[in-house]
Amino acid sequence: MLTVLFAAPALWPEYEPHLPAALAEAGLTARIVTEAAPAEVDYIVYAPASPLQDFTPYTRTKAVLNLWAGVEKIVGNPTLTQPLCRMVDPGLTEGMVEWVVGHTLRHHLGMDRHIVNPARVWDPTCPPLARERPVTILGMGALGSACAEALRALNFPVTGWSRTEKPGQLHGAQGLRQALSTAQILVTLLPKTPETENLLDADRLALLPRGAVILNPGRGALIDDQALLAALDAGQIGHATLDVFRVEPLPQDHPFWSHPKVTVTPHIAADTRAVTSSRVIAENIQRGEAGEPFLHLVDRARGY
Amino acid sequence: MLTVLFAAPALWPEYEPHLPAALAEAGLTARIVTEAAPAEVDYIVYAPASPLQDFTPYTRTKAVLNLWAGVEKIVGNPTLTQPLCRMVDPGLTEGMVEWVVGHTLRHHLGMDRHIVNPARVWDPTCPPLARERPVTILGMGALGSACAEALRALNFPVTGWSRTEKPGQLHGAQGLRQALSTAQILVTLLPKTPETENLLDADRLALLPRGAVILNPGRGALIDDQALLAALDAGQIGHATLDVFRVEPLPQDHPFWSHPKVTVTPHIAADTRAVTSSRVIAENIQRGEAGEPFLHLVDRARGY
Repeated sequence: MLTVLFAAPALWPEYEPHLPAALAEAGLTARIVTEAAPAEVDYIVYAPASPLQDFTPYTRTKAVLNLWAGVEKIVGNPTLTQPLCRMVDPGLTEGMVEWVVGHTLRHHLGMDRHIVNPARVWDPTCPPLARERPVTILGMGALGSACAEALRALNFPVTGWSRTEKPGQLHGAQGLRQALSTAQILVTLLPKTPETENLLDADRLALLPRGAVILNPGRGALIDDQALLAALDAGQIGHATLDVFRVEPLPQDHPFWSHPKVTVTPHIAADTRAVTSSRVIAENIQRGEAGEPFLHLVDRARGY
Repeated sequence: MLTVLFAAPALWPEYEPHLPAALAEAGLTARIVTEAAPAEVDYIVYAPASPLQDFTPYTRTKAVLNLWAGVEKIVGNPTLTQPLCRMVDPGLTEGMVEWVVGHTLRHHLGMDRHIVNPARVWDPTCPPLARERPVTILGMGALGSACAEALRALNFPVTGWSRTEKPGQLHGAQGLRQALSTAQILVTLLPKTPETENLLDADRLALLPRGAVILNPGRGALIDDQALLAALDAGQIGHATLDVFRVEPLPQDHPFWSHPKVTVTPHIAADTRAVTSSRVIAENIQRGEAGEPFLHLVDRARGY
């Protein structure tokens, strides 16, 4: 009988209908608890807001299974020596694809001028076709790749850029310059690491085609807020639709709220869904018990 | 040497760079003219606004090739006895798919409340996944089928309804009731015929789930305007995004312009693109010369 500590008590009501069933389906005999003696815990299901911060006494624990894709709040914890897995939830990926494709099409079609049109302007000029609208995605992990696939299915020419070399994608500093230079719509889906913080600074924003649109469903810190505001005011950036921020909820006095070229969405692009993520947790525990490598294991040196 | 009468003079500047090249690529020796003696004309490229209305003297003409998908303004012309072909332009289909998928995602994600958010509301409640958002498409021709495929690729459960029986789709009056009953988002892509006029009347609007969204990129006459306004006011319909109207441009005093639950887009969902439609015209002339059946031949009895 395994002991699984569900160390995210606030989320337990959401997981209670799904996680026990997923473990049973995976053929695992386990008790799931929200409190336990540390030395008895085989696996920890974790969320960044968890009260559990000292992993030292969890000597028997074989893995910490994070409920979110982002691990930046936990990866630097020096007491965490157990294997750490990110969540790659198919439901989360689907939600992200929907947000990215939806806002890409919104800007591609110029919807805002129809949604708010008090002057009743009837201008039947058609937008270009998606095949004429280059999109660049920074960060081609599970989420970025899924977005690229969905956008390509709609004929958008998609350029992908990764920090590390991957087949068929741009990478490195020179690749980044090239990826930015063609992006009429730029999607930032990188993890937050010391290397990606303020990746989009004034210099890099200046590399985009004039009037480019930025969609940021990744991490707030990827973009230098002040540089973005200046580029919007100068017309270099046409619009920014932002789902993530350095401080959330976005403070009421932040200039993003009132800027006419900024759309704020309240960190809804990607949410872990209990029904699908429970299955991922069960599969990872099953792998741990079978001595197989964990899925979505965090590379501690890279930080994600 | 064939004589092709391009009977849509206003569009000639758009087609001049593409149509001669497409005919030459298809191996056709042809002169394209905007005026000709009727008895010399082999093919007519046509648009509804064309000054040509009497087809009687075009005794040699093998086909009239319409530049638009809709033929309702020409199909009833008693002088038109030549074969009539609709345009099924891949560029037009792509544009339609982009508009339908874009506005479906806009309503699915509830974008409008973020695009216009003067109270700076931060509500991180996630929308459901697309797999939980049933969409119904009325009209499963070339355009409807392409929209269904794109929406299904994003996991939307799509119900298709056709006037005629087609495999895997609902049809007939009973099928229509079933198709409407599940539609959280309803897309109307039927041609305008006597049978489809006011198809969405008060009774049928009442069959939709409460709060359903309507997207109409098909024909304005498919919906009873007054019934729609009443259903919006009653909350039965949550929003209507309309691209086509009984009178276009939509008159400045039409209540759709000012209704808070109506979005007007100016007939931009589908536009024929000269580069792609020129190839379709060339292929049809090639077929006519080879004695093969024309593509997209209009069924005069059905009216489309």
